[in-house]
Amino acid sequence: MMQLKFTKMHGAGNDFVVIDGVRQKVALSPEQLRFLADRHFGVGCDQILLVEKSQHADADFRYRIFNADGGEVEQCGNGARCFVRFVHDHKLTPKREIVVETKSGLIKPRLEDDGRVTVNMGAPMFAPEYIPFVGQGAVSEPLEVAGETLEISAVSMGNPHAVQIVADVEHAPVEKLGPLIEHHPRFPNRVNAGFMQVKDRSHIRLRVYERGAGETLSCGTGACAAVVAGIRRGLLDSPVNVVTRGGQLTIAWNGEGEPVLMTGPAISVFEGEISL
Amino acid sequence: MMQLKFTKMHGAGNDFVVIDGVRQKVALSPEQLRFLADRHFGVGCDQILLVEKSQHADADFRYRIFNADGGEVEQCGNGARCFVRFVHDHKLTPKREIVVETKSGLIKPRLEDDGRVTVNMGAPMFAPEYIPFVGQGAVSEPLEVAGETLEISAVSMGNPHAVQIVADVEHAPVEKLGPLIEHHPRFPNRVNAGFMQVKDRSHIRLRVYERGAGETLSCGTGACAAVVAGIRRGLLDSPVNVVTRGGQLTIAWNGEGEPVLMTGPAISVFEGEISL
Repeated sequence: MMQLKFTKMHGAGNDFVVIDGVRQKVALSPEQLRFLADRHFGVGCDQILLVEKSQHADADFRYRIFNADGGEVEQCGNGARCFVRFVHDHKLTPKREIVVETKSGLIKPRLEDDGRVTVNMGAPMFAPEYIPFVGQGAVSEPLEVAGETLEISAVSMGNPHAVQIVADVEHAPVEKLGPLIEHHPRFPNRVNAGFMQVKDRSHIRLRVYERGAGETLSCGTGACAAVVAGIRRGLLDSPVNVVTRGGQLTIAWNGEGEPVLMTGPAISVFEGEISL
Repeated sequence: MMQLKFTKMHGAGNDFVVIDGVRQKVALSPEQLRFLADRHFGVGCDQILLVEKSQHADADFRYRIFNADGGEVEQCGNGARCFVRFVHDHKLTPKREIVVETKSGLIKPRLEDDGRVTVNMGAPMFAPEYIPFVGQGAVSEPLEVAGETLEISAVSMGNPHAVQIVADVEHAPVEKLGPLIEHHPRFPNRVNAGFMQVKDRSHIRLRVYERGAGETLSCGTGACAAVVAGIRRGLLDSPVNVVTRGGQLTIAWNGEGEPVLMTGPAISVFEGEISL
């Protein structure tokens, strides 16, 4: 039996059980991870974030992210933001820009003066074979779905996105078109379907039907893909404020080859202690 | 800003944020209740249980139960079990049988030696006009659903139930038949639909499609109604062990006019502290 302290956090509605593995000795079995993530029998979260010391000379910390099924995932923009708030609020470091070792390499998120956190999400890719997408690699192109011709922009943010512009995002047919776009034969690895309403050149509203998950409260890479698509189509200027159902994100991008910077909230909801 | 300590508990998967209003001064707005119940932005639970001192001369405590929408509900068997474990574990009383004032009157749940809790769920009612049900009041009777003739027992445990026997509860068509039974015109106030597999005279497996909620992990009144129906049909002998997806309950009933006693688990999952 081990007594474990944790913090429940969320970043735009994507929620985490965050555990200090620096001051506590923590080794969690897949069964314990699934129990922590269970919303009825355990604590409940989308993912578990474990903060540890890094063995890497250049890194301040290491973190690992586990899905609700106990499997480890590579990266997560919302998780990186919560990580930064956690090590800052728990006084594990006085730094505001923190070098952290993740499963997919070193990242350097930054705590802003307003309490939000900025994460480098990497450069978008547009080559059809990279996304993968059976298409021309144009800024936007037609996609036949359920007898309609949609105009979509195909973008990879490490994962594939198909972004379309809608007049009114609240009434967009996300539930109807989302699964049809996700499984469209022109996206061999399936795709995340974004529905973006352009309010003005620096404000959009966004809903995303996530690959394998359905519509979620907020999708960090989806926000990046939507803004990149809007800038390429000549409709938006960086930085852009993105309103999702889970909260607001600010996305900045300086054009092809440049990384996308995502700034967003990281909220501590409560402190907890559990016997495992 | 108030700092609030709470305990996350569950009784057979029905989960609660339990708050000590005896040692803490607690007044929660509907907005704060909704926030506490929110599974992504707050703590997350089916219901919030607030333990207070009673003004009633015969009662040890009072408790109030609030739904996730902030509305107050009258009674809840799973909540009563968690209440008993909470006041015992937090040393608010040394008693094992506790008189508690609820919105629907005084109840007297009891902590058993094995840590489970027994709650008096009241006497079942069979009169069709009381359930309400358009039927004969027989032990079981036919109900036409989707071209099939089901054999159901109509029982009120304060709320209406239609219980049927199935050969294999795991493969029973709960999702298909549940909503059709719930809205059947012969149940004017709708009905909870129970699907019971009889293993032997003291063991059943049960799934319940709850009125207004769909299938749930565990339904306390549904377990009572199923066992009462099985005893009346001559298939079961009291007490009966009921296996649900959320856990096991033991139901005892000594026949018409007698109350149903439900014994089941009440588990403390973790301790938390939140700023509201």
